[in-house]
Order: sequence, then structure tokens, then C-alpha cells
Amino acid sequence: MNDTFLKACRGEKVDYTPVWLMRQAGRYLPEYQAVRSGVDFLTLCKTPELAATVTLQPVDILGVDAAILFSDILVLVEAMGMRLEFSEKKGPQLSEPIRNRSLAERLAVPDPEDDLSYVLETIRILRGRLNVPLIGFSGAPFTLATYMIEGEGSKSFVNTKKMMFSSPALFAYLMDKITDSVISYLKAQIMAGAQAVQIFDSWAGVLSPEDYRLFAVPYVKRAVAELKNEGVPVIYFVNGCAGILKDIRKSGADVIGIDWRVDIGEAIKKLGKKFSVQGNLDPTALFLPEEKLRERVGDILSKAEAARGHIFNLGHGILPETPVEGAKALVRAVHELSSP
Amino acid sequence: MNDTFLKACRGEKVDYTPVWLMRQAGRYLPEYQAVRSGVDFLTLCKTPELAATVTLQPVDILGVDAAILFSDILVLVEAMGMRLEFSEKKGPQLSEPIRNRSLAERLAVPDPEDDLSYVLETIRILRGRLNVPLIGFSGAPFTLATYMIEGEGSKSFVNTKKMMFSSPALFAYLMDKITDSVISYLKAQIMAGAQAVQIFDSWAGVLSPEDYRLFAVPYVKRAVAELKNEGVPVIYFVNGCAGILKDIRKSGADVIGIDWRVDIGEAIKKLGKKFSVQGNLDPTALFLPEEKLRERVGDILSKAEAARGHIFNLGHGILPETPVEGAKALVRAVHELSSP
Repeated sequence: MNDTFLKACRGEKVDYTPVWLMRQAGRYLPEYQAVRSGVDFLTLCKTPELAATVTLQPVDILGVDAAILFSDILVLVEAMGMRLEFSEKKGPQLSEPIRNRSLAERLAVPDPEDDLSYVLETIRILRGRLNVPLIGFSGAPFTLATYMIEGEGSKSFVNTKKMMFSSPALFAYLMDKITDSVISYLKAQIMAGAQAVQIFDSWAGVLSPEDYRLFAVPYVKRAVAELKNEGVPVIYFVNGCAGILKDIRKSGADVIGIDWRVDIGEAIKKLGKKFSVQGNLDPTALFLPEEKLRERVGDILSKAEAARGHIFNLGHGILPETPVEGAKALVRAVHELSSP
Repeated sequence: MNDTFLKACRGEKVDYTPVWLMRQAGRYLPEYQAVRSGVDFLTLCKTPELAATVTLQPVDILGVDAAILFSDILVLVEAMGMRLEFSEKKGPQLSEPIRNRSLAERLAVPDPEDDLSYVLETIRILRGRLNVPLIGFSGAPFTLATYMIEGEGSKSFVNTKKMMFSSPALFAYLMDKITDSVISYLKAQIMAGAQAVQIFDSWAGVLSPEDYRLFAVPYVKRAVAELKNEGVPVIYFVNGCAGILKDIRKSGADVIGIDWRVDIGEAIKKLGKKFSVQGNLDPTALFLPEEKLRERVGDILSKAEAARGHIFNLGHGILPETPVEGAKALVRAVHELSSP
């Protein structure tokens, strides 16, 4: 069992820097496309044998040091009672977006063993087949709330912010319910065998620092505090973290994920010594010639030496257009350049 | 003539903090909608009398301290030789995106007096009718390049980054040509009567700090240096500036525009005393109850006292859904709270 990833999460000494890639099980891999060609996206998420298969692919093909459960953050929202569809063109679509109290009251805090059993089953299958740690995950409360309130992806998140600003009590009610759901979902993933969990705050970066402090990080903090007793590292990733790094510390997570639009050295200075960090290569850097890619990997590795621990990753999900050779070259570069 | 805005740009003493709003001539105003209902967007940009009319509307309705030319950053790209259309659904569409040398070579550096005469005519009309300063503008070279290379808006800017990374000489050739075009365009706007110019780098915030230093800011720096001789303030706005503020200083602009995802006090600390700043209220804060809005305005005003000069603005363009009353309340709040 390769536990380098878990050691780095806890800030323990490692022989080399572990690496995995956000969305490493995904469309850039022909092997993934082959599985996906037979089923729609949501069916893939809900079929444990298939979800396990695509989770394992990047571990075998790239040689990464951790696997991340193949799933989608919105299956939890579906389990809370909203109808979810994925449209090829428009992305995720949730019917009856939550814009008033009665819709919010109708939402349930799911029982993962019943309502998300396919996720837990996927985890159980994977633990029998993996020789690297398995990361479970959930969307962060704010990010899930944006989808639930907007009903789909958004650019300006007007409906979310209108609710935050005009109906703060309703927003808090919704966020509390989501937070309870996130906690029970992640606890169930850990019980089923997840050896670390990542909380994805894909959209918290659209908040001003003040709004992040008021409306997003307190809920993450509560979730992290509840998960601390479970004994596995918690990773917290905010896409667009540069302006709120000081506030992100309040999450209390073990590992802070850093996107690519900030210098990782500066980010570590702001975070201080209490956290391990994860990141932060620009996903498009995988289009670079290998030699230039290695320079950038080396730069990040050397800056990240200042942190308590470092897990190498991209600063956001790997893009579908990425050449597999680029992803392989990255993993190779991280392992070679970080070995003594 | 109210020259409070120009004084604040230059860091001179002012009686109150001037305010204008990015996209203040826009869809949130019924008076704009009335004009726009008769013509398509591009025709509105190209009809000086109409463009002047909508430019004046927010000055009269909101009482802002500066007007900004009504136009679009992509008319310059059209003048360089690309075919431009605006689709209600898909936004701007440029045919034959620039992906190789021969397409890049076909582009011209336009002569604004010939190719963009409608913009200059709009400026001349406005100078006869305004009692506040008129701001001209252009897209920044990197931002214009993204549209020219992608052919439309983008999320991940894969084609742009592929060119940057795989064909740096071609990218530099294209950027040089765009920069020449931006310089001659802004000089012509100033000659026609623009009393300040803003360079919009809407997409430079998708670059890693290293790539921003390599591929974006050097071109802005050259443009600003050339414009310095024209004797009007240059404002430089990067949307998503939090991670690159130190590098933005290299632009040499007089005023740095700050988006809402960073604390303006922290931004000023990083920028230092050489710049005035512009910003940075979250555009969605205009949905707040007036009393809460005033608190946020007061907070920004007090933090911005640390800067050489401050022009109040939103941290990004005003949203179409914004209540006009919110915009009026903002202008009132800035003027009242900043007056001794």
C-alpha cells in the first residue's frame, strides 16, 4: 500500500511528493470514453462496477498516488429531493430551483445508506482493488447551494446573492440543511472506506471576502469540525482562492487546495504552517513541451517546500482536450524531481 | 465642469470620492432598453448619435462623475479584419479564429480615422454635451487575443494557451499587432476628446502569475508607456486581479481597477503608493437593502483612504438584473459618505 499521499496530508515525512489530478478519471482518457460511450453520465455515476472501473483507470495509466471516487457533486442534491439531469449542451439542470422557504423545507437530509448506496458500494468495490488511498468527496455547502438556487450553472449567481442579501434567514436555513447533508454523506463515505475526503468549493471564489466570511466558510468549518473525529484528512479546495486565503484558514481543513491563479509560495505564506497544501499547476500547462512542463513542476515543488506538506495536483480539473502524454509526463516529472 | 474624477485619477485632493459604474450605459436601464429595442447591438455601437444618447443616460439618471463611451471592445478586432457578429444566445462570434501565422498576417493595424470613425464621431458629439469627463476605452491585448484565437467567449481558453505554449513566436507576433492597434486606437480616442482611457483586461485573470508576467503585462506596459505622452490618465482593470497585483504594478498605469474578489485594503497594500485605485463593490451588492449597501460603501471608502487616490466603482460590470434604485442609492451613498 502506497501511503505517501496520506502522509503528505498529515505533514509527515515522505520519500517523494505524491501527485493526483482533479478529474483524473475523465474525458481526456480514451479508456474513459470507451466506458462512457455505452452509458449516460448519471448512469455511470450510479453503476458501482462502472464507476469503480473509471476510478481505477488513471491509477493504472498515469501512476498517480491517490484515486478519487468517480461521481458528481450533484448526486447529493438529487438525494436531497431535487430532480437532476445532465444536458450535453447546458450542463447540469435542476428542476424547481430553491427560491422560497416552502421549496427549501421540502428538501431532505438524505440517509446515504439508502439514498446514495451506489456511491458507498463503489467505494467498497474500490477498496478491494486499490493499492493507493481512495479519496471521497462532496461539494461544499455554498457551491451546492448555488446549483440548488440557480437551477444550473451561472456566471453572476444573481439568484444566490439575492437570497443571501434579501433573505438571509432562508439562506441560512438552506445552508444548514445542505451542511447536515454534506456531513452525513462524507461520514458515510469514510465508513465505507474513503481514506481522505475533499470538499470542493468550486464557486466560493465568486464571493467578496466579506461575503465568503459571512456566507460560506462558517458552514465548511462546521463540516470539517464534525469530520475531524473520523480520523481521515480533509482537503478543502476553493477555485479562485487568491483573495480569500486568510479566511480559508478558518475552515480548519488539514489540506488546502490552491488553484493556479496564485503563486503557491505566496499562498503558503498567507496560510501559515498549520496546513498541508495541494496544487497548483495550470491545467493547460499539460500542453507545454515536456521540458517546459518540467520547469514549472520544479518551480512549484521548490516553492511548496515551505509548506507543512505538499500534494502535487493541478490548480483545477484536467481538461478534456489534454493529451494523455502530458498527464503522464506530469506524474513522471513530479516523482523524479521530488525524489532525493 | 466636474473634474473630481480626473483629480482622483492623478491623486490630487478632491472634495468627495468620484464614482462611475462599469457598464453604466446598459441593459438595467429602461431608457437604454428603449433605444436598444430599435437597433441591434452592433448598429447601436456604430451609430454615433445613438451611442452618444445611451452614453449620456447614466450621467443624467444616476449622477455619476464620469461618462464612459458606449461601445464594445471587439469593434477594434473587427477593424483589424475579422468578421464580428453578436448572437443573443452565444455572445460574440468571430469567424476564422486566428490559429496560424497566415491568418495572423492578414490582420491589419487599423487607421482609426478611417476604420473606426464612428467611435471618434461619438466622442466628438459627447464632448459637446457632457459636463463630466469622458472615458474612452479598449480591450487589453491579451483579452482581445483570447477572442481572436478562440473565436468566441471561452471558459478554459485552451486554444489561446496552446498557442502561447506551443507557438510563442506566433503568439508574440499577434500580440504585437494587437498592441499596435490598441495604441493607435486609444491615441485617436484621446485626440477626439477622451479625457481618460481605460484598458479592460477581462480575461488576464485566467493566467497563472508566471504566464501573466510572460504573456500579458509586457504588452500593457508598452501601450501605457506610449499613451503617457498624451497627457490623460490611463486606468487598467484586470478582472480577477487578486493573485497578480504585484505584477499589475508593472503596467505603469495611473489607476488600477480592482475587482470585488479581493479586499481593497489588501490590494492597496500590495500596489503601494504610486497608484490611484478604482473599485471595488460586488455588482450584486446593489441588490442589498440600502442600509446594508451603505455599510459596504463606507467600508470600501475607509479602506481606500490608504491609496493615492480613489475612484469608486463596482468590481465588475453592472448586471442587467440590477434595480435602477440600487444604482442610484450607490451613487448617493458614495457622495454622501465621502463628503466631509
